[in-house]
Amino acid sequence: MPQARLKATHGFHATMRARPGRADALIDALLAGAPTSNENCLVYLVGRSSSEPDVIDVTEGWTSKEAHAEAFASASAQALIARLAPLVTDAAQYRDVVPVGGSVRG
Amino acid sequence: MPQARLKATHGFHATMRARPGRADALIDALLAGAPTSNENCLVYLVGRSSSEPDVIDVTEGWTSKEAHAEAFASASAQALIARLAPLVTDAAQYRDVVPVGGSVRG
Repeated sequence: MPQARLKATHGFHATMRARPGRADALIDALLAGAPTSNENCLVYLVGRSSSEPDVIDVTEGWTSKEAHAEAFASASAQALIARLAPLVTDAAQYRDVVPVGGSVRG
Repeated sequence: MPQARLKATHGFHATMRARPGRADALIDALLAGAPTSNENCLVYLVGRSSSEPDVIDVTEGWTSKEAHAEAFASASAQALIARLAPLVTDAAQYRDVVPVGGSVRG
């Protein structure tokens, strides 16, 4: 598992709370809606708190803020946001974290 | 970039603050010390806050808590911790997040 240096200049941890009983559906929607075909998306990781299983994290890393903004404005991203809305209790909390290196062993 | 479901059952975000001027050295040490040869380590990601560049994040995902504990007790991990100690202001803050899926485009 080589740990690569990433060329991301933009990224974040978004933390959200699923409505009761909707965490699995939220995870499914997040993973299904992952911007995997966008080469500017370098990191996309969904995580779940083990102590609070309704708390879901998304970590993203992008080549640029502009690339993320463009992707975020796309029809597919807006459709994903619409699918997520009924599954979460409120808006996500964001922390800016730019991924600098690492890897995921699929 | 296929987003894979991960078989992690243990994970966390560790957030630490580098001593002034030591963030690059901290990132280098974290990436160099990544447990890349351990097949139980499914996610290892280092990130840096863009608003507070001394704040460094490490996201890890492991097949089990036991596998992580065993790796953490190893000589190489303890040597890494020794190398990190002079580079950080205090102990890392941990949030338990188990990675459930995603990928990194190296």
